[in-house]
Amino acid sequence: MTVYMEELDAFTYSEKIRAGAPVLIPAGSIEQHGRHMPLHVDTILSRRIAGETAREVGAVVSAPITYGYKSQQRSGGGNHLPGTTSLDGEVVTTIAKSLVNEFARHGATNICFINGHFENYQFLYEGADLALRELKSAGVEDLRIMLLSYWDFVDDATIDRLYPDGFAGWDLEHGGVLETSLMLHLFPEQVDMTKVDDGPPAILPNYDILPVRPELTPASGCLSSGADATAEKGKLLLQHASARMSAAITNEFGL
Amino acid sequence: MTVYMEELDAFTYSEKIRAGAPVLIPAGSIEQHGRHMPLHVDTILSRRIAGETAREVGAVVSAPITYGYKSQQRSGGGNHLPGTTSLDGEVVTTIAKSLVNEFARHGATNICFINGHFENYQFLYEGADLALRELKSAGVEDLRIMLLSYWDFVDDATIDRLYPDGFAGWDLEHGGVLETSLMLHLFPEQVDMTKVDDGPPAILPNYDILPVRPELTPASGCLSSGADATAEKGKLLLQHASARMSAAITNEFGL
Amino acid sequence: MTVYMEELDAFTYSEKIRAGAPVLIPAGSIEQHGRHMPLHVDTILSRRIAGETAREVGAVVSAPITYGYKSQQRSGGGNHLPGTTSLDGEVVTTIAKSLVNEFARHGATNICFINGHFENYQFLYEGADLALRELKSAGVEDLRIMLLSYWDFVDDATIDRLYPDGFAGWDLEHGGVLETSLMLHLFPEQVDMTKVDDGPPAILPNYDILPVRPELTPASGCLSSGADATAEKGKLLLQHASARMSAAITNEFGL
Amino acid sequence: MTVYMEELDAFTYSEKIRAGAPVLIPAGSIEQHGRHMPLHVDTILSRRIAGETAREVGAVVSAPITYGYKSQQRSGGGNHLPGTTSLDGEVVTTIAKSLVNEFARHGATNICFINGHFENYQFLYEGADLALRELKSAGVEDLRIMLLSYWDFVDDATIDRLYPDGFAGWDLEHGGVLETSLMLHLFPEQVDMTKVDDGPPAILPNYDILPVRPELTPASGCLSSGADATAEKGKLLLQHASARMSAAITNEFGL
Amino acid sequence: MTVYMEELDAFTYSEKIRAGAPVLIPAGSIEQHGRHMPLHVDTILSRRIAGETAREVGAVVSAPITYGYKSQQRSGGGNHLPGTTSLDGEVVTTIAKSLVNEFARHGATNICFINGHFENYQFLYEGADLALRELKSAGVEDLRIMLLSYWDFVDDATIDRLYPDGFAGWDLEHGGVLETSLMLHLFPEQVDMTKVDDGPPAILPNYDILPVRPELTPASGCLSSGADATAEKGKLLLQHASARMSAAITNEFGL
Amino acid sequence: MTVYMEELDAFTYSEKIRAGAPVLIPAGSIEQHGRHMPLHVDTILSRRIAGETAREVGAVVSAPITYGYKSQQRSGGGNHLPGTTSLDGEVVTTIAKSLVNEFARHGATNICFINGHFENYQFLYEGADLALRELKSAGVEDLRIMLLSYWDFVDDATIDRLYPDGFAGWDLEHGGVLETSLMLHLFPEQVDMTKVDDGPPAILPNYDILPVRPELTPASGCLSSGADATAEKGKLLLQHASARMSAAITNEFGL
Repeated sequence: MTVYMEELDAFTYSEKIRAGAPVLIPAGSIEQHGRHMPLHVDTILSRRIAGETAREVGAVVSAPITYGYKSQQRSGGGNHLPGTTSLDGEVVTTIAKSLVNEFARHGATNICFINGHFENYQFLYEGADLALRELKSAGVEDLRIMLLSYWDFVDDATIDRLYPDGFAGWDLEHGGVLETSLMLHLFPEQVDMTKVDDGPPAILPNYDILPVRPELTPASGCLSSGADATAEKGKLLLQHASARMSAAITNEFGL
Repeated sequence: MTVYMEELDAFTYSEKIRAGAPVLIPAGSIEQHGRHMPLHVDTILSRRIAGETAREVGAVVSAPITYGYKSQQRSGGGNHLPGTTSLDGEVVTTIAKSLVNEFARHGATNICFINGHFENYQFLYEGADLALRELKSAGVEDLRIMLLSYWDFVDDATIDRLYPDGFAGWDLEHGGVLETSLMLHLFPEQVDMTKVDDGPPAILPNYDILPVRPELTPASGCLSSGADATAEKGKLLLQHASARMSAAITNEFGL
Repeated sequence: MTVYMEELDAFTYSEKIRAGAPVLIPAGSIEQHGRHMPLHVDTILSRRIAGETAREVGAVVSAPITYGYKSQQRSGGGNHLPGTTSLDGEVVTTIAKSLVNEFARHGATNICFINGHFENYQFLYEGADLALRELKSAGVEDLRIMLLSYWDFVDDATIDRLYPDGFAGWDLEHGGVLETSLMLHLFPEQVDMTKVDDGPPAILPNYDILPVRPELTPASGCLSSGADATAEKGKLLLQHASARMSAAITNEFGL
Repeated sequence: MTVYMEELDAFTYSEKIRAGAPVLIPAGSIEQHGRHMPLHVDTILSRRIAGETAREVGAVVSAPITYGYKSQQRSGGGNHLPGTTSLDGEVVTTIAKSLVNEFARHGATNICFINGHFENYQFLYEGADLALRELKSAGVEDLRIMLLSYWDFVDDATIDRLYPDGFAGWDLEHGGVLETSLMLHLFPEQVDMTKVDDGPPAILPNYDILPVRPELTPASGCLSSGADATAEKGKLLLQHASARMSAAITNEFGL
Repeated sequence: MTVYMEELDAFTYSEKIRAGAPVLIPAGSIEQHGRHMPLHVDTILSRRIAGETAREVGAVVSAPITYGYKSQQRSGGGNHLPGTTSLDGEVVTTIAKSLVNEFARHGATNICFINGHFENYQFLYEGADLALRELKSAGVEDLRIMLLSYWDFVDDATIDRLYPDGFAGWDLEHGGVLETSLMLHLFPEQVDMTKVDDGPPAILPNYDILPVRPELTPASGCLSSGADATAEKGKLLLQHASARMSAAITNEFGL
Repeated sequence: MTVYMEELDAFTYSEKIRAGAPVLIPAGSIEQHGRHMPLHVDTILSRRIAGETAREVGAVVSAPITYGYKSQQRSGGGNHLPGTTSLDGEVVTTIAKSLVNEFARHGATNICFINGHFENYQFLYEGADLALRELKSAGVEDLRIMLLSYWDFVDDATIDRLYPDGFAGWDLEHGGVLETSLMLHLFPEQVDMTKVDDGPPAILPNYDILPVRPELTPASGCLSSGADATAEKGKLLLQHASARMSAAITNEFGL
């Protein structure tokens, strides 16, 4: 049976929740990911990684947060780029808050955000915090919320195997080896490796500047090259990250 | 080539917009639709109908508004039901406003909301109006926005064929012949006709009461029976509605 | 004794509420209604109809929501017209929420919105829903809220008598027979029948377009002609609608 | 012809605005005013005083802001009292902002708030300021907004005549000689002088305390006695205040 | 030991709160105060006066609200002046609300706003009221909040000594004898008496006009002259005001 | 002459801005920093580092953002701790937006946020982005905004000297060697080294959990030990960080 909430009928979903299934909320974005990948990389990757994890821990994956916070130049190329379609921080926060409130109303007591878009994190966190405050006021005390970004569950050994020439940090991974490998493994028909722009990683300052200076973002929109990506690396990433995520969720929620 | 924005890479998307393609924004919900259909009926139907229309008029379909406004008892059974996962009106409005602003930034001048969830309409309208006000302030004058609900494009002749025993109104169509037929035509693997509750239509007052009186909603969650639904009716509905929507969009946007 | 709250002193009002009187909240607008009627038609009609109903059910009528949501072209001619003075949806929602909270603080347990402006409805509904959520959080559990639009209480027999040539739907009734007749019955000094523009009903598309195309609204601002309006029809309308509203309120609130 | 906007038809209203008529916006409240006066004293007094002034300066009086900001103990007895029905500050601000925006859209260039409820002032001011900021952004540069409270236009000589035993300040005037006299002059049928509680003025601290200590407000709800009120004093007040308001408006708007 | 919260470590602060210390919240502004005084006069004066009071009543002074509501022409010269750096009313309200919520979470039950910027008052009041509503919803019932402006604690005898030629009212005191004297007493190194503009007091209308007419504000930015200010007067003011504030706080909070 | 805006009179400040001085906005927090340091560490450090930088680049330092976003367990111990006094994300965003708008009104064209509290960053960024959008709408096109966190300007060589035993990352630096050293150098009287809790660094998961599990935060509230801090290290840090910040600001703003 599917782990994806939106593909379930309401009665089956409701039984799962009443039986104690945690809810995993994937949070992505509609953001340019170079010429070789589609706009919804963050959304479908976080959704599928959540799905893999859900199968291991007996969770339900909610319908995704499709649109995310504005792309920032140092982690996503910048929000000036066409195709990138973003929400203000307050909107992301309010969506996150509303979903927590709704799943709590359904009876869920364990909720985990699976973030797939770097820039979302603080706004999801704020939404989770505000929901807890409201729910506490309404007398709901037994809710636990986890928040994670899936790449934080890639361990150092895996990083060494993926990046034999050295790892530049997750923020520069936008459109690079991590995302491209996962896409090649999970959605190969949506990747066109002939269009990878195999340039050097972007060189970005240790601060932000607004309005962005467009010339700081490579013409490809990717902050590092995905040329070394392979489906095998994607498989490895998925296995390691989802296994470690499952362990953390199991442990934290006492499943 | 796909008409769905999120499956395009940013560069291809951007060329389409610069070439004048309208953007169609499907707006759905995560809402119970009886035992025989999944929670995302409104979202995937509005998205697919938008897709059909987009192919006819040369448009791009944006990633959908996945979650919608609260289900109301007289048109969706009520927001007290488990599975139904909704946003406050202000959130729906702000999402709609933000998307219009972003597509305008990309260069789109013709935007059309394709609504698939009755309760969304006024909040989408307000979002469109607020976006226009902001864009006008920012000097953008050439934007046109259409808003429609797809069932308003089913003509009377089609209604007569679909409902030989009489038509009770679109609001009672929640989970009934219209939606079930469209699902049977477009997503047959997601419908289980053995689970249709073939009861009489709900009898609801000509006003709203809050908190809802749960007993007014049939146990199935559907306001009328989908037992008479067929894939053929769905095909007919899709053809007629999308043809008429295409004509309206073509005419209004001068395509 | 007056049924209108604002004409009562606070002590008398308070006794009525403590004795269990429901509160009816009229919601209108300041909106053009043709050359033959003043701008506050929706406000004074909803207030007077609420007053009639209040006398029958022992309710108090609150001071009205004077300004309403933006006029839409398909139900009110459009918000581009001079004279029409409207609030954003969020403001209408917040006013509705605040009033419910205040009347609940006074001790009211039965509150009914009497809507007289088509476009208000969803924003009033959202305000009522948000107030219930807040009040539930604050431990108030015994509040019931009804929401109705008065024209929904005109029955088919009455419609047949009022519109012998066929009825085009309530949305096109803006400035037409219904409102003009009620005004002739209740506020004849505010109607100038010599200024009625007796044109054919407006022909409007089955979607919205923003910015509105002004040429779609008749020059009179009315969507159908009020020429056939009479004070007798108004009297009939008022009697039937308020009797049926009274019955619904009595029944729902267990008065 | 009436000076009250809501009693005009849209076309006549529009001609007046295009001819340069200023718009006066009365801002009141629904607030307890003792046993001898109704809840809408602030609203109908500000509206009628605005009306008097409008006739002198050729202005239009808009439909009133019916509900106002929360009653404060030191100027209105406190918002804990039943009957008093108030809005949060943000709502008052947003209403004021919206009205300015709408009247500017109609073509008005001179707008004046006529405040009749002490507590409203700062929130109206903020609304006016925000509207100006938005309108400036939208390219509207020729708008002037005045804000006044009508009692500030009572001169010292009149005060001496009204309060031969000494004047305690406008904040303590809640339900006292000023308001009662004006009501006796303008709406005598709504005052019951037999119910005036002729007690000493309230003694209130030079700070606020929340939650209010209810015992600080006299049982009558009035902060000073209205026993010395007369219709003659009301007439005097109205003449002097509206004459001076008219002079200020004429001068400031260059009429 | 310091009475200023921000100079304490968290553990010491926490012990004080648990022992019942009230929290005093100074609220100032960054606002022009003539050529002879710095921009933060309101902030450092309210903070120091709060500090003096705190020592007398055993309170803790919170970190100040540094930026305040917009300067108004009749009490601060107007917000068009460079240097004056202000927040919208809603922001001031939300800061005040958040601080009350946080101090209540720490265990404080007695909180007092010490206002030093005329224009802040109503927005602080609203923040305090909203916090109480939220806290009440969350089950916190034992919180008391005072709000005061320090100049309201200067008694008539002191006013007579400070202003032998007559007192024009606290609103015109912006940059005048009161503030300059207090600065001379408490922060003499930040005052340059050679730069005092010894002109006549500003003559301002009994209403507001927006956009402000800049010519109504004296070129100095001060509404009255500080030339007669002395450190001795400042000392006197501080002693009298803080003694009376201490008495009020002690009495109200039952210390 | 002081570089701190709030210590300047308005006229002098205004001349500096008109002469092209950038504005540096320090953003801190009121947050527990162990037993050995006061609550305002983040605010006074960001303010003083901004001051050092301002002297080098000819900038003005604005009054600080005193209160910041909620402390998070993985970077500040968590917002459940007493003493920590925080604002919701939306409030931090709105303050940042308002300050940019105000400094732009004063004529500033180069603005830089100097962040001293890890959790603030995204909310400041959003505020800056929203201000730019509003200002662009209002016709202001020449504004550049930088955002930085001062520790990002400590280079690897300095890190090696400060942390000879290895560096655990800036997020664990809360209350540790960096902040304690800077405090010892700049505000030695506010540090009590005898109270440093010299425990091992906190071990925190690679995700967030809400409500926080308090046992994950060391009893000291510090995430790593400040025992190795010295004033010399602080001096070194200040010199290196402010020199590199000055270079970046000079370069970016073309000073």
